[in-house]
Formats: sequence, structure tokens, C-alpha cells
Amino acid sequence: MRKLERLLLKMKDTTELMIDLAYSALLYDNKAIAKEVHRLEDLIDRLNMQIQQEAVERTAKEHPEAALFILRLSNSLEIIGDAALQIADITLRGMRPHPIFQESVKAADVSIARIYIPPRSPIVNKTLGELRLASETGMWIIAIRRKKRWIFGPDEFTTIKGGDILIGRGPEEGVAALRNAVLRGIG
Amino acid sequence: MRKLERLLLKMKDTTELMIDLAYSALLYDNKAIAKEVHRLEDLIDRLNMQIQQEAVERTAKEHPEAALFILRLSNSLEIIGDAALQIADITLRGMRPHPIFQESVKAADVSIARIYIPPRSPIVNKTLGELRLASETGMWIIAIRRKKRWIFGPDEFTTIKGGDILIGRGPEEGVAALRNAVLRGIG
Repeated sequence: MRKLERLLLKMKDTTELMIDLAYSALLYDNKAIAKEVHRLEDLIDRLNMQIQQEAVERTAKEHPEAALFILRLSNSLEIIGDAALQIADITLRGMRPHPIFQESVKAADVSIARIYIPPRSPIVNKTLGELRLASETGMWIIAIRRKKRWIFGPDEFTTIKGGDILIGRGPEEGVAALRNAVLRGIG
Repeated sequence: MRKLERLLLKMKDTTELMIDLAYSALLYDNKAIAKEVHRLEDLIDRLNMQIQQEAVERTAKEHPEAALFILRLSNSLEIIGDAALQIADITLRGMRPHPIFQESVKAADVSIARIYIPPRSPIVNKTLGELRLASETGMWIIAIRRKKRWIFGPDEFTTIKGGDILIGRGPEEGVAALRNAVLRGIG
């Protein structure tokens, strides 16, 4: 059952990241982010197959209700992943983000913002785990642009570097809180 | 174009609330929450139809690219709403939440938690807008249980009352931050 739990957890986290990244790809007209959504969709497909196998071959025998529950849920999660992929594909097909959409994302309950980290920011060389940006500012970091490369779905061990550009999602007032943290540090 | 922006914004916010509520319905085996996801799915369908009409009848003539962009996006958002509905339906069909799922939600990057507001909490009689819980604790309040009724998707004008049970989504450390705010107030 542990394996099933781990797979399901990974699937849930991945679909949420995919939706956030898909919106970001549209908002910033960014094909690199859209391609990451594609890569994650492959991961979702693999996870879904593993979950099906695990549920049918192991769990179904002793816990048929649990197996059915998990299969239904993972099926729905795969659909969410597909929808995120469709959103990312708008960017990959070369359609430019429309101001209507950009305004909508900015005014939405959950906003997406890009924040530059100056080399002398007090949060430089700290990990996301140490900083607890998500609970301190409400902003969830979904991607980091570092020089020419991207870090997608950074975790608690990811260190912030000077010159990074963070892409975060959170409430509108979280954007100001994050900018403040970048300038003055946390707390 | 303003109308289209407003409709799209509403659709995006609604799908995100639906997913959070659908997970909550599963986690707490709560049919009232699952039914709200159904109500929101009706809203999504209406919004999608209005967006299609607006895009085709008004926007398409002068801005065909914009119309196509918006149609594709709203189509994907509707699929996300459908998937949230499927998740909520697991609860409505009487399947009980499985510990595997409950553990997964608790251990996920984005956790869901229920927090009781004691009558003497310092946050009682304050609005969510005043408290800025989302940026102060990282927790987004998706529903409030007040006596026998529910407030779904509360907004900045919603006042917290003693005896409320909040359902929030956010990072794991946000749960502790919110509990702390409930006991000691903000800041």
C-alpha cells in the first residue's frame, strides 16, 4: 500500500504543478515551460500505469474498494494533466498570449508573478525549506530561471541564487510580500 | 473585451476552487462539499457557453486570434472542471475515502486542513481581507463551516466567526502558521 500512496502523492503534486506551469507558459509565452508540461504529462502517464498495475495486481485482491477508489481518482488526475497539456499546447502552437488572458491571470484569486533576485538579496544562498516562502509570503515557487537553465517544481532543498528569476503562484498580496522578502529577508 | 476577461477570470478561479473542494470532499467524506462541486460545474458550463458566444459573436470579427485563444483555453478549463466533478462524484457515490488517499493529501506539497476557530480567537470578527491569511500563513481558505451551513470560496469580505471550522489549502508548514494565527492573531 505504501507504494500506491507514494505514486498517488506524486501524481497529485504533478498535476497541480502542470496546471500552474501551463498558465505560466501562456502568460509569459514561454515554450520552455510548455515543454516541461509535456515532460510531466509523460510522467503522469507512467504514474497512472503504475498505479493501475499496483491497484489491480496487489490491492484489488484484499481491498477491492480501495483499488476502485484509487483507480477512479488516478483516472481523474490524468484528465487534469491532459487539460494542462492542452493549455501548454496553445503556447507550443505559436499562439501568443492575449491581453484578456494576461489580465485575467493577474486579477485572479491565485496570481502568477515573476520576481528577480538581486545578487545581494538576503534570501540568496538559502534553501526554500529554510525560507519557508510559501507560509511566510503565501507564494509557491513553481519554477526558477537560473542563467540559461530552468528548475521546475523546486523543492525544500533548492537553494536561491543571486540573479535567479522566480516564478511564483499565490494570492495577489503574496506578490508584494515576496518582493518584500527578497529585499529585506524573512521575519 | 472586458466581459470576456471577467468571464475567463471567473472560470479560472472556479476550476481551481472545484479541484480543492473535490479533494476536500474526498478527504472528509463530505457530500455537502461534493454537491457544491456539482453546482460549480453548472456554473462552469454556463460560463463556457457565455465565453463561446462572446468570443464568436463579438471578438472573432476583429480579433480572430484572440477568439481562438480564449476558446481553446476555456475548453481546457471546462475539462478541468469535469475532472474535479469526477473526483467529487467518488464521494457522492458513497465510496469512503481510503487511508492511502488521506495520507497522500496530508503529505502532498499542497495540503488540506480543517481548523476550528475558538470563540475567543483574536481573528474572530475580522474579514479574510483584513487578516490576509493567504499571504500571512500560506493557507487559502476554500470553505467555512458555520453552524449548519457552508460558505464555499469565501472572499475578502467574509468575516470569521467564533465556532467556525475553516477548510484551508496550502503548504504543510502553513497549517501550523494558521493554527498559530488562530491562537495568537496575525503579526
